[in-house]
Amino acid sequence: MSSVGAALPALPARITIREVGPRDGLQPEPPVPVATRVQLVMALIDAGVSLIEVAAFVSPKAVPAMAGAAEVMAALPRSPSVRHVALVPNVRGAELAAEAGVDALTLTVSASEGYSQRNVHMSVEDSLAQVAAIRSAIGGDLPMDTVISCAFGSPYEGDLDPAAVADLGRRALGSGSTSLTYADTTGMATPRRVRDLLAETGNDGGLHLHDTRGTALVNAYAALEAGVTRFDTAVGGLGGSPFAAGAGGNLATEDLVHMCDDLGIATGIDLGALLAISSQVAETVGHPVPSRVAAAGPRSRLHPG
Amino acid sequence: MSSVGAALPALPARITIREVGPRDGLQPEPPVPVATRVQLVMALIDAGVSLIEVAAFVSPKAVPAMAGAAEVMAALPRSPSVRHVALVPNVRGAELAAEAGVDALTLTVSASEGYSQRNVHMSVEDSLAQVAAIRSAIGGDLPMDTVISCAFGSPYEGDLDPAAVADLGRRALGSGSTSLTYADTTGMATPRRVRDLLAETGNDGGLHLHDTRGTALVNAYAALEAGVTRFDTAVGGLGGSPFAAGAGGNLATEDLVHMCDDLGIATGIDLGALLAISSQVAETVGHPVPSRVAAAGPRSRLHPG
Repeated sequence: MSSVGAALPALPARITIREVGPRDGLQPEPPVPVATRVQLVMALIDAGVSLIEVAAFVSPKAVPAMAGAAEVMAALPRSPSVRHVALVPNVRGAELAAEAGVDALTLTVSASEGYSQRNVHMSVEDSLAQVAAIRSAIGGDLPMDTVISCAFGSPYEGDLDPAAVADLGRRALGSGSTSLTYADTTGMATPRRVRDLLAETGNDGGLHLHDTRGTALVNAYAALEAGVTRFDTAVGGLGGSPFAAGAGGNLATEDLVHMCDDLGIATGIDLGALLAISSQVAETVGHPVPSRVAAAGPRSRLHPG
Repeated sequence: MSSVGAALPALPARITIREVGPRDGLQPEPPVPVATRVQLVMALIDAGVSLIEVAAFVSPKAVPAMAGAAEVMAALPRSPSVRHVALVPNVRGAELAAEAGVDALTLTVSASEGYSQRNVHMSVEDSLAQVAAIRSAIGGDLPMDTVISCAFGSPYEGDLDPAAVADLGRRALGSGSTSLTYADTTGMATPRRVRDLLAETGNDGGLHLHDTRGTALVNAYAALEAGVTRFDTAVGGLGGSPFAAGAGGNLATEDLVHMCDDLGIATGIDLGALLAISSQVAETVGHPVPSRVAAAGPRSRLHPG
């Protein structure tokens, strides 16, 4: 028995979802044509998504699934109410993205030295220097969100000091980033790790959660209670390793929207439209998506007859 | 931004897990021999489980997977530190379970009239009358836990009034039950529904959560925050419909223990031993178990090399 009711924290009235399905979600899948990716982005915007990662300006040889970033941007109708963002790994990518007219850049810096070396073949320090180089190359106007990967632990070093992660975030801001997103890259976060990091950061960023261990939604809930109001999600929960279908993907947009709908937290996204897109995405990638809400239907769906 | 840290609720220091894998978990699977079920129960007890649903005293014609309940009980070594409980649907089952020496009975009464009619071909009122009849038949000593199914919504009537669900629980106590467990039978709970029901019940029971929509763990977390200290779980997350492998099962014991371990909540259960059992259970049932922690390994597992 304990203090039921009064002691439970209030939840935010509204959150912003940065939909990363067309980029982070599709990146590990076999390449999907530009036209199909454009249709996906437009459908998501029709469903109410207003912040969306549409492309990565990376080498098409290194990442074939992301080829055609400029073509994606060129094909998308623009609207002042929707922000199109793109991942960039370096100055060249940032310049191409800026030329293509993105509304913001996404960069990554890892909190884990081991992960940084293996993922981008760079030290954390060199990665931070790249943030500054990108800001210098593109000038002062374009928003740059830096994703701090492995922010809740690393499969190479294990648990990381939340104070050190928060300090890295502050250095990324000092290097020209305009906002931060803390990523649970390999699904090591728990509500305790979320609380611990947010206590150090002062809750100054968004969260990017992966469902490797089935904890993405509970971590999102713990973050909502702590006042976080921006989340990265991918339609269907795409983004997992292609070698472990159904496991390890991003927090599914429909799973977060489904929960927020019942919690009275506005997302601006229509769940029914989103589920229709998710179903289409499963056909596009040729396998079921990890989202459980996509599989079972929303809680409002009654037994037929 | 909001009140990070100070406003977040404390969590309980310790919880009790009622392991239901050998009963609720295996019931929808093809029959597993008595000896294998006995081995499973003993392995779970070795891993630290101290409250375990080992059998259902039901018609073996109706539920072939649960045949041999008395044989399971007879084969189990007894210890004062472990409570063996059995599901019983009626007076006859309760008498057989009592004769077999169970430490407690589990009964079910549904909060949903539509579900009650379809599941047990009885009205909710008749089901309550059965609770009283069972108490009358077995006398006053044996603990009887009544599981209130569809406590967080029904696929037949949709959302149910939490005050009415709480009232039904009180009537089950008045009919001879000694404790209550609120079940999210079809995965309709969200943290909001958990909070709402617990506010009505005064948090007087355990929770039995299903992962149909990927919400079992977040609902458990919301319940922990509200002070709930007893949970039903099934090793592997077994218990889903055999027609939807991997979806809809019970909250996996290893998923709850994994989270509690990192939250500093004692469960008495050893995660490593539990994961070994889960792996064995997957072989027993012939398909992967739904647990994501079982698939990915615990967060403490570092990258090899």
